[in-house]
Amino acid sequence: MEQIIGLDELILSALAEDIGTGDITTLATVAETSVSEAKLIAKESGVLCGLDVFSRVYRLYDSRVRVESKLRDGDLLSEGAVIAEVAGLSRSLLTAERVALNLLQHLSGVATQTRRFADAVKAYETRIVDTRKTTPGLRVLEKYAVRVGGGSNHRFSLQDGVLIKDNHIRAAGGIAIAVAAARRIAPFTLKVEVECESLEQVREALESGADIIMLDNMSVEEMRSAVELIGGRAITEASGNIGDKRADQLAEIAAAGVDVISVGALTHSVRALDISLKF
Amino acid sequence: MEQIIGLDELILSALAEDIGTGDITTLATVAETSVSEAKLIAKESGVLCGLDVFSRVYRLYDSRVRVESKLRDGDLLSEGAVIAEVAGLSRSLLTAERVALNLLQHLSGVATQTRRFADAVKAYETRIVDTRKTTPGLRVLEKYAVRVGGGSNHRFSLQDGVLIKDNHIRAAGGIAIAVAAARRIAPFTLKVEVECESLEQVREALESGADIIMLDNMSVEEMRSAVELIGGRAITEASGNIGDKRADQLAEIAAAGVDVISVGALTHSVRALDISLKF
Amino acid sequence: MEQIIGLDELILSALAEDIGTGDITTLATVAETSVSEAKLIAKESGVLCGLDVFSRVYRLYDSRVRVESKLRDGDLLSEGAVIAEVAGLSRSLLTAERVALNLLQHLSGVATQTRRFADAVKAYETRIVDTRKTTPGLRVLEKYAVRVGGGSNHRFSLQDGVLIKDNHIRAAGGIAIAVAAARRIAPFTLKVEVECESLEQVREALESGADIIMLDNMSVEEMRSAVELIGGRAITEASGNIGDKRADQLAEIAAAGVDVISVGALTHSVRALDISLKF
Amino acid sequence: MEQIIGLDELILSALAEDIGTGDITTLATVAETSVSEAKLIAKESGVLCGLDVFSRVYRLYDSRVRVESKLRDGDLLSEGAVIAEVAGLSRSLLTAERVALNLLQHLSGVATQTRRFADAVKAYETRIVDTRKTTPGLRVLEKYAVRVGGGSNHRFSLQDGVLIKDNHIRAAGGIAIAVAAARRIAPFTLKVEVECESLEQVREALESGADIIMLDNMSVEEMRSAVELIGGRAITEASGNIGDKRADQLAEIAAAGVDVISVGALTHSVRALDISLKF
Amino acid sequence: MEQIIGLDELILSALAEDIGTGDITTLATVAETSVSEAKLIAKESGVLCGLDVFSRVYRLYDSRVRVESKLRDGDLLSEGAVIAEVAGLSRSLLTAERVALNLLQHLSGVATQTRRFADAVKAYETRIVDTRKTTPGLRVLEKYAVRVGGGSNHRFSLQDGVLIKDNHIRAAGGIAIAVAAARRIAPFTLKVEVECESLEQVREALESGADIIMLDNMSVEEMRSAVELIGGRAITEASGNIGDKRADQLAEIAAAGVDVISVGALTHSVRALDISLKF
Amino acid sequence: MEQIIGLDELILSALAEDIGTGDITTLATVAETSVSEAKLIAKESGVLCGLDVFSRVYRLYDSRVRVESKLRDGDLLSEGAVIAEVAGLSRSLLTAERVALNLLQHLSGVATQTRRFADAVKAYETRIVDTRKTTPGLRVLEKYAVRVGGGSNHRFSLQDGVLIKDNHIRAAGGIAIAVAAARRIAPFTLKVEVECESLEQVREALESGADIIMLDNMSVEEMRSAVELIGGRAITEASGNIGDKRADQLAEIAAAGVDVISVGALTHSVRALDISLKF
Repeated sequence: MEQIIGLDELILSALAEDIGTGDITTLATVAETSVSEAKLIAKESGVLCGLDVFSRVYRLYDSRVRVESKLRDGDLLSEGAVIAEVAGLSRSLLTAERVALNLLQHLSGVATQTRRFADAVKAYETRIVDTRKTTPGLRVLEKYAVRVGGGSNHRFSLQDGVLIKDNHIRAAGGIAIAVAAARRIAPFTLKVEVECESLEQVREALESGADIIMLDNMSVEEMRSAVELIGGRAITEASGNIGDKRADQLAEIAAAGVDVISVGALTHSVRALDISLKF
Repeated sequence: MEQIIGLDELILSALAEDIGTGDITTLATVAETSVSEAKLIAKESGVLCGLDVFSRVYRLYDSRVRVESKLRDGDLLSEGAVIAEVAGLSRSLLTAERVALNLLQHLSGVATQTRRFADAVKAYETRIVDTRKTTPGLRVLEKYAVRVGGGSNHRFSLQDGVLIKDNHIRAAGGIAIAVAAARRIAPFTLKVEVECESLEQVREALESGADIIMLDNMSVEEMRSAVELIGGRAITEASGNIGDKRADQLAEIAAAGVDVISVGALTHSVRALDISLKF
Repeated sequence: MEQIIGLDELILSALAEDIGTGDITTLATVAETSVSEAKLIAKESGVLCGLDVFSRVYRLYDSRVRVESKLRDGDLLSEGAVIAEVAGLSRSLLTAERVALNLLQHLSGVATQTRRFADAVKAYETRIVDTRKTTPGLRVLEKYAVRVGGGSNHRFSLQDGVLIKDNHIRAAGGIAIAVAAARRIAPFTLKVEVECESLEQVREALESGADIIMLDNMSVEEMRSAVELIGGRAITEASGNIGDKRADQLAEIAAAGVDVISVGALTHSVRALDISLKF
Repeated sequence: MEQIIGLDELILSALAEDIGTGDITTLATVAETSVSEAKLIAKESGVLCGLDVFSRVYRLYDSRVRVESKLRDGDLLSEGAVIAEVAGLSRSLLTAERVALNLLQHLSGVATQTRRFADAVKAYETRIVDTRKTTPGLRVLEKYAVRVGGGSNHRFSLQDGVLIKDNHIRAAGGIAIAVAAARRIAPFTLKVEVECESLEQVREALESGADIIMLDNMSVEEMRSAVELIGGRAITEASGNIGDKRADQLAEIAAAGVDVISVGALTHSVRALDISLKF
Repeated sequence: MEQIIGLDELILSALAEDIGTGDITTLATVAETSVSEAKLIAKESGVLCGLDVFSRVYRLYDSRVRVESKLRDGDLLSEGAVIAEVAGLSRSLLTAERVALNLLQHLSGVATQTRRFADAVKAYETRIVDTRKTTPGLRVLEKYAVRVGGGSNHRFSLQDGVLIKDNHIRAAGGIAIAVAAARRIAPFTLKVEVECESLEQVREALESGADIIMLDNMSVEEMRSAVELIGGRAITEASGNIGDKRADQLAEIAAAGVDVISVGALTHSVRALDISLKF
Repeated sequence: MEQIIGLDELILSALAEDIGTGDITTLATVAETSVSEAKLIAKESGVLCGLDVFSRVYRLYDSRVRVESKLRDGDLLSEGAVIAEVAGLSRSLLTAERVALNLLQHLSGVATQTRRFADAVKAYETRIVDTRKTTPGLRVLEKYAVRVGGGSNHRFSLQDGVLIKDNHIRAAGGIAIAVAAARRIAPFTLKVEVECESLEQVREALESGADIIMLDNMSVEEMRSAVELIGGRAITEASGNIGDKRADQLAEIAAAGVDVISVGALTHSVRALDISLKF
């Protein structure tokens, strides 16, 4: 995994949240010098994600704990697979376990879910991308998990992409004005995307020189027409509850020729993957 | 909602995460003095939770934004229900929207899911309780959502409950020794709970004077025997993938007479409730 | 000493507070490469506490400083005892000295004082416990020092113990209502304690099923009656200026049969133990 | 009280330490809308200090709580004196009470103690000053309390005063070299002080042009000789366990003509003043 | 000025840095209740920038200080111009003055300098843009000042723009491979820029589909050829010590037809504008 | 360089500011295991300052990067000089480069500029000192750079020097009153300085016992008279746009016999020294 600025702070505050003033149970029952070994085991199948985060939790809590990886992020897990072996002071292994697992299970859940969506369109060149509907505090990790699961990333924050939505268009006084304003004020390193709800708007966005055109809540048929109209002059993004209510339409939407499909459910509705630490 | 220490810091860091160096789209397209009104609307049915958090996001981003609540946490939402009205500078409404919604949708998701579990056992005195399998950074909020949804809370952190698990028992050299050690070292304001995997262990825990006995991964039949054996001398907690793989057994487990059923899925596998802000 | 979440931050901010923009005296007068050795010496008798904190201060300021412990927390110090030997860059030894000593002297002061109280009741099973009257920022350390001195801990914060005081009773409308409300809302892992100022209230608390009954500001005679009345059905806690104005009554109170005596003075009125670093 | 940078952060972290995930007792027993009034009352005589801090705690926890001061810092308290009246939501009054009182009682303890020392030398021009033996995190507040109690401040940190001690002298190779080095490197806005253990050293320091000469652990007779020798050419500071083991010599030391007496005990060994909040 | 996440923290830490444990001079010499008025006056001509930051410093230090603006960011200042009037407690006005002025003078310095560069190319469509050569901690503010001065922004951080430099090209194994890798991994909302040092590289970048081509350290003649070669198929950026050693070539470079000229000196070599507060 | 409290936090936040959610270019184009070596080279002559800060940036970003210094702070750089060699993972070298260089170039710029001023008065005993006109967040580093460049430091913050300016004098009711108040309230370890605009004020300050007298905005002739009048009874400081508009008068002012000349431009108007990292 790449190095992530702020990851240590996130982990330390998660440890503080979970441990509070101390793991009184472990302090009372486990000797200070006792050592243990444990195996990190998949309890169901899925895509592994977050192993470096799991290790980092232990390293930050007690730098002497050793985590030996047997697999790596992106690997497919089958039930019973040994993901890593953990060794060190028993107290450390027990006290930091929950935080390490909570992060690993959540990220593997995101990756596993993304893989399912990505597989649904793998016959096409269409990419599955995430949104800003992420868990507060976990965005960079969740977007990493999306990539591990075979998806791609939309912008990471409001800073690194111009996305002109209906309210922006209305406030600016039209698509053309809005696009021109964005070109003038935003860093020239950013593409300009326009959210369109009709072919009429698609046409307008195209004429305004938009780099990306979002087809919002359109029927598959409309999308097909939009893609045709655009003819490669802009990137196309399908959007609007697609991962949720329209999950069965994914392949059809991809077949319509859109470049990317953005799916909020990748990160806003995640089932943790069942992984546990066996002593 | 009660006042939560640290909530403002959580929100501010979520805003920083989402906005980055600036909402360049809004800055470019929306005039500085433009004002707007918007309605917060349920797009599906569920239990509302997090409305004060939603308001606080706006208040912290721009103290002049006004959020007028039409409903309150715990209310049942039907599709189309107007939850609140928001008014203020258009820029503020647009820029802080995503963070406010992300938190509201997630917490309402937790409450809605908890309500479903609580309803499944409502014929009994059994309570549904949460676990420490929460989202890093969001524990206090998620545990609040569990209460809003009709559940109860297990300990908030390792500090406020003694829970002696299998590894603690093994390290201490037996249940009796572990319970005695906990009584000696932990604050006397805490109850002592022992995780038991067999009736034999239940008997031992009972004799050691445990306040709470966890029936871990037991069949419903075993639970029934355990409850009978304990005979009200300790609180009983059923545990072990009950919200996930054994969700259909909930009523049966409650009927067995356990006092609480702990469900990790309440918080580790949440589907965001669909709520949106309409301008 | 157990690992304490937040200890490093506490130490780093104490170093910042004491060093400011730099130890200009040492920078001016001591060569960058000069090395020194020093002995940590007790200047009076008492109970040692905080040696790991002392070491951690040096480690955080300069990881190359070596602190070799000759004694450990809980050891009785006689005047002149060598507690540890410290070696490293002279600049580091001098610049971090004050913070390291301030913490060590304060914690040893708490432990020494606690020992004195604990010794006063050692003929009985009664335990001396602390309160929340601690120094802001130092609570976990001070409560650790109480344990090192032979005392026990009351709750660490408002989160890990239910303590229903007179104002809560009044607000709730009676002891029984208050206890029932606490049972309903607080995590079931917490015991419920009720503060009582009369035998009448003790009786009421007992009937309400309180787990702990605080005998507040009672005469020794009243305490005796209360203990008799309670008859082991609840834990009893004597409270009310006992460490201060009533310090001479400690043994008498213990003899009355209360389980714990809480003493605010353990932590709110501490005399630092005289310990110094000799180069 | 003057505005102190960092005070809010100190208070917020004290509140977090004391409240943790929530004041579960108050939440359970006190209605959300209940309001109360309370009186802040001295339970013994002393010097009031920290009333603005007390108010700030409440203001930061709940800006609607009103604290009406009846007295001000520096006022002499007699038992039973009403210091302030507090009004607001009952929950807020109860939950933030302990932190507000802990700070107020501690600072009033410092001021009361300082007043006692200052009174002991009030027949002389000698000033009582503090040291860096303060409670980690509370230095600025404690030094403020020293001033309120009638004492004066020594340097606040290693940044704002040059104090050349025995180890610095040894490392530099003599007093003259050390003083010269300090003049060259330290900001020219700082005075240079030299710790002397003998008249010989006092002479040397004087010749080196020291601005302040510390008479460390000298007998009163030696001090008298030193003061005479110095003859007003430098400020003189008496130091060395004076507040503790030599507290009875204070007037005698002042009579010897030293300008200031530094007393570590002002801040390292404090008895909290008994003040309480009556509802 | 737009709202900037993190601005308050920046200001608070600047105040802490400047005030330390207290403005002892002001506390000693100015009465607590004294009030003053002062005028913020330009001592030389330039472009005003940072007036909201100036006001925010005062507001954060003491919310009762009133700053009444007479001008706004972007306005041309002539010597003697009254920028704002400040009124409030004398202590607050004096203590926070330096931080408020330091920020205002620096940002006005950036804006004034940018204006000079922008004016040099105003006959052309070429834009002056900044770089990441900014002052640590002040990037967002400095980039705002660049816009106020008539310049435009390059990326704000490594997150919001892909800029493939010589080392990236070498590591990837060629321009085409590097561009393809960036398209695959970076968010699709970002443009891809390639740094080219020769026409040969320009050709390669163009064929690889780069969105932006940086002409690095090229002679004006080379730039002209590159612009011609590119023929509008990519944005062109001139770069390489242009604000410093080649400042006299600006107009000539613009005349060569490049779209933007990036100038590190806009932010790495700034002369503060002379502005002062007159009481 | 001496150890600076808070330096790591400064660097980490500069890295966060520059890297954001990730160096997407490097992640896309450079293999995870690729290693590189690079040389840190002066592109122009000047005084080196900040090499330890440069190294620390790399160490904090990736502790495995090795920086081997070839020169040290204070060394004179000639164009082309190799300052250090850097080796490690290519990704780390590229991603942290900008922050490391920004700090190094800025500090070397301060030191180089200071050297120029110091050289201008090197025939005299007069010292060049800095002011509080520093870059927010960088004060300690900039004041270090001033010393490296051959200058000296004025106070670091409002805490470590009493400087009574015109507004203080007016508020206090005269110089004598202000000086007496400062003596009473400020730590006795600080010298008292008075800003004087006329010989009349100089005389008054001298009689009040000021330790330092600032000659503010005086002509060289006036300064000469003031120095004569003071006759060594106080330290003299020349001040008032001397580094800027009066830079050509430096030697003349020094010849007038003032002890120090304070120059705001040392830190408020800095040109970064051109230094680069060649792979």
